[in-house]
Amino acid sequence: MENRENELDNLTEEILSPDENLPETKELLTLIAEKRYREFRSIISEIPAVDIARMLDDVPEESINIFYRLLPKEAAADVFIEMDSEVQEHLISLFTDNELSEMLEELYLDDTVDIIEEMPANVVKRILRNSSRENRSIINQLLHYPKDSAGTIMTTEYVRFTKDQTVEQALTHIRRVAIDKETIYNCYVTDKDRCLIGLVTAKALMLSSPDTVLEDIMEDSVIFVSTTDDKEEVALKFNKYGFIALPVVDNEGRLVGIVTVDDAIDVLKEEADEDFAKIAAITPDDTPYVRQSAFNLFKARIPWLLFLMISATISGAILGFFEGTLLPVLTIFLPMLMGTGGNSGSQSSVTAIRALGSGEMTGRDLPRIFFKELRVGIMCGALLAVVSFGKIMLIDRWLLGNEAVTVTVAIAVSVTLAAIIVASKLVGCTLPVAAKAIGLDPAVMASPLITTLVDVLALLVYFVISANVFGLVV
Amino acid sequence: MENRENELDNLTEEILSPDENLPETKELLTLIAEKRYREFRSIISEIPAVDIARMLDDVPEESINIFYRLLPKEAAADVFIEMDSEVQEHLISLFTDNELSEMLEELYLDDTVDIIEEMPANVVKRILRNSSRENRSIINQLLHYPKDSAGTIMTTEYVRFTKDQTVEQALTHIRRVAIDKETIYNCYVTDKDRCLIGLVTAKALMLSSPDTVLEDIMEDSVIFVSTTDDKEEVALKFNKYGFIALPVVDNEGRLVGIVTVDDAIDVLKEEADEDFAKIAAITPDDTPYVRQSAFNLFKARIPWLLFLMISATISGAILGFFEGTLLPVLTIFLPMLMGTGGNSGSQSSVTAIRALGSGEMTGRDLPRIFFKELRVGIMCGALLAVVSFGKIMLIDRWLLGNEAVTVTVAIAVSVTLAAIIVASKLVGCTLPVAAKAIGLDPAVMASPLITTLVDVLALLVYFVISANVFGLVV
Repeated sequence: MENRENELDNLTEEILSPDENLPETKELLTLIAEKRYREFRSIISEIPAVDIARMLDDVPEESINIFYRLLPKEAAADVFIEMDSEVQEHLISLFTDNELSEMLEELYLDDTVDIIEEMPANVVKRILRNSSRENRSIINQLLHYPKDSAGTIMTTEYVRFTKDQTVEQALTHIRRVAIDKETIYNCYVTDKDRCLIGLVTAKALMLSSPDTVLEDIMEDSVIFVSTTDDKEEVALKFNKYGFIALPVVDNEGRLVGIVTVDDAIDVLKEEADEDFAKIAAITPDDTPYVRQSAFNLFKARIPWLLFLMISATISGAILGFFEGTLLPVLTIFLPMLMGTGGNSGSQSSVTAIRALGSGEMTGRDLPRIFFKELRVGIMCGALLAVVSFGKIMLIDRWLLGNEAVTVTVAIAVSVTLAAIIVASKLVGCTLPVAAKAIGLDPAVMASPLITTLVDVLALLVYFVISANVFGLVV
Repeated sequence: MENRENELDNLTEEILSPDENLPETKELLTLIAEKRYREFRSIISEIPAVDIARMLDDVPEESINIFYRLLPKEAAADVFIEMDSEVQEHLISLFTDNELSEMLEELYLDDTVDIIEEMPANVVKRILRNSSRENRSIINQLLHYPKDSAGTIMTTEYVRFTKDQTVEQALTHIRRVAIDKETIYNCYVTDKDRCLIGLVTAKALMLSSPDTVLEDIMEDSVIFVSTTDDKEEVALKFNKYGFIALPVVDNEGRLVGIVTVDDAIDVLKEEADEDFAKIAAITPDDTPYVRQSAFNLFKARIPWLLFLMISATISGAILGFFEGTLLPVLTIFLPMLMGTGGNSGSQSSVTAIRALGSGEMTGRDLPRIFFKELRVGIMCGALLAVVSFGKIMLIDRWLLGNEAVTVTVAIAVSVTLAAIIVASKLVGCTLPVAAKAIGLDPAVMASPLITTLVDVLALLVYFVISANVFGLVV
C-alpha cells in the first residue's frame, strides 16, 4: 500500500511541467479499470484542460463517458471546449438534459457558439433548448454576426462600470462576478446608454486608494473595434498594440463584448495556416494534418491540381507550335526558363500577399510597389542573365560539348531570362493587389496560379525573342 | 482664439480610436513650426506609442529631435522601442550621455537588448557605458543566450514572492514595484534558492482576504520553459494554453525571467513570415515589405534564384538527351507534367513544413505520414490520369487536330502523370521531415527546391515510361 502511495507521489511530481511529462493515457485508463478513482482525480487535477482533451482522443469510445465524468466539475467544461467536435457530439448524446444544461452554464457564451457551429441541427436544437432564456437570446445574436467578423470571436462576459463608481465598489463587484468573466484585467466604463467611454485596468484598481472615483483613473482614449470588423484586422491590432483584451462596440457605439488575446492568437494562427494552404494550392481546412484522413486531404488538394493541369494545355499548345519552328536546341533551356520565372513570380506574389494580409500595404500602394518590383526585377534579371550566359557557355557548350549551343543561342536564352524575370515580378505583385481590389482573397493569386501564367508568358517571350530577334528558326 | 480651441477639441475628439483617425503628421509638424507646443502635447498624449513611432518615419530628419523631445517623458521610451533602428540610431547620436542614461532607465531590459542587437559597435558601447552597473550585467547575460532561445525574448522584470507572505504583503509589494514590472497579473512564488514553486495571479490576490497566506492560493503545477528552449516552442505554448505570461527557469530550476504574451505573438508572426519567405525562396528579413529598398529585396531574392537556375541545368541535360530519342509530340506535355508534379509536391511539402513547425507532427510520425501521402497520391494520381487522358483525346487530338497525339501517347502521358504525382507527394512530405531530422529548418525544403527536384524526376519518369514501356521512340 505504501508502495502504491509512493508511486503516485512520483507520478504527481513528474507532471509539474505537464505538457512535457504527461502521464500515459493508458495508465489513467488502468486506474479507471481498477476503480482507483481517488488516484485518478488526484492526477488529472494537475493536468491542463487542453492536454486532457488531447488524451481523450486516444480513449476508446466505451470509456470516454466514465473518463469525462470523473473529471473535477470545474475542469470538465474547460476540457469540453478543447475536444474535437466528434467527441463533443458523442458526449452530448450521452448527457441527460439536466447534465447538458449544467455543462452549458459553465461555458462562456462564445465557446458555446463555437461548439454550436460544428454540431448537426438536432444537437443545436437540444443545446438551445437546454440554455437559459437569456443565454439563448445572446447565442442567437452571436450566431448572426457576419462570417469572420469580430462579433463571432468576442465574448459577452466582461466587467463593466460607470464612471462615478469608486475603486472599492469596483473591487467588490469584481469579487462577486469574477468567476463568470473571461478576464477581469481589462474592465470598461460605459455611460447611461451603455456607450464605451473608458478603460480601467486591474492594475489601476490595485494601485489606487479605495475611495478614488473611476473617472480619475480610467484611460479615456480607448482603442476599440466594431462587431462587423474583420477578425484578422482585430487580431492584428493585438499584435500592434500588445493588448490583453479589446472592447467591441455596435453601430451605435454601445459596448457589446470583448475579444481576449488568446482568441486573437488563434485567429492569427488560423489566418497564417489558411494563407499557407492557398499558397500551396490547397483548400484550407482547420483540422490538423496528422488527424486528417487521406480522403479529406485528397478532396482539399484535387481541385487546384485539376484546374492547373487543364490550364497547362495552353502552354502545351504554344510549345507544339514552337517545336516545328524554332531550333531544337532551344528546348533544353525550357525547364530553366519556366522554373526561374515561376520562382521569381512566387517571390513577389507571396511577398505581396503577406504584406496585404498583415495590413502593411493596401491597394493604393500598387504604383509604388510596381515600380519597386520593376527595379528588383531589372537587378535580378541582369545578374541572372550574365550568370546564365556564362553557365551556358561553360557547362552546356564546353563541358557537355553540345555543338548546337552557339553564342547567339546563349545570348537569346539570357535575354529571354532577364525579360521573363522582370515580367514575372510585375505579374506576381500586381495580381494579388488586383484580387484584393475586386474583393477576392489575394492569396488565391498565389504561386501555383502565377507559375502557370508565367509558364505561358515565358514560352511566348522565348518564342518572340528567339525567332524574331535572333532568327533562331529551323 | 475660441475658434482654434474648438478646432483642437474636434481634433482630440476624432482620435478616440486613434489608429483609424490619426491626425496627419504634417498637422503636428505645423504645430511645432508655430511653436504651439501645449497643443502638440495635448494631441500627442492621446496617441498610442506605436502610432507615434510610425509618424516619426515621415518626419524630416531635422525635425525628429524636436518632435521626440516634445513627447511626454513617460511616452518617449515607449515610442523609442517602437521606432526603426535607423531612427533610433539617429536619435541616440543626438542624445547627451545624461539623456541616454535617463532614457535607458525607462526601458525594460529586454527592450534594451533588442535595441542593442540592431546597433553598430560604437553605439552599443555607449549604451552599456550609460547603463547602471547592475543593468549592464543583466544585459550582458541576456545577450549571451543562444539565438532564438526563450532567454532572448524574456524580460527580467517580474514580480516574485515567497510562499509564507500574505496577500496584504503581496499587494503592498506590487503597489511599490508595479511601475517597473512588465506585468503584475502573473506573479511567481520561489523558494529560498529562487526555484520556481508556484504561480499567484492578480485575480487570486484580488479575490482573497488580506491575511491569506500565498501558499494557500498559489497554483503549484506551473507550466514553465527553460532559457534555452526554442522561442517558437515557447510561443506555441501560449497558443495552446492561452497564458498571458510564462515563467522561464535556468538549468537549476531557478526563476530568471518571464515571457509575456505580446512577445509570444511577435514570435508567432515572425516565424510565420519566415516560413512564408522560405516557401517563396526568399531570405527572410523582418523589415516590412513597403519599407524595404529595392536593393535589399534583390539581395534577399537572388541567392535562391541563382541556385535554382543553375540546378535546372540537370533537367536541361536530361531534356537534351530525351529530344534526340523520343517522339517530338511528347514535348508538348512537358509543361503540364512538370507543373502538375511541382504543384502536387508543393502541396505535401508545405503541409508537412507547417505541421512540423506548429509542433503537431514530429519526425516519428514519418512512416504514418508517408503512408497517408501514398494513399493521397494514388487517389490524386488516378483521378488526374483519367481526366488527363480524356482531355488529351478531346482537346489535343480532336479539337486541335494534332495527328501525332495517338491513343498510346495519351496513355503514356496519363500513366506518367499518375506516377509523377505519387512520387512528388512522397518526396514532398519526406524531405522536410528529413531536414528536421538532421537539424535543418524544414522550410528550406520548400516548394522551389521540391519543384526543381520534381522537374528532374518528372523527366526521368516520362522518359522511362515513354521509351521503355510504350516504345514511343523516334
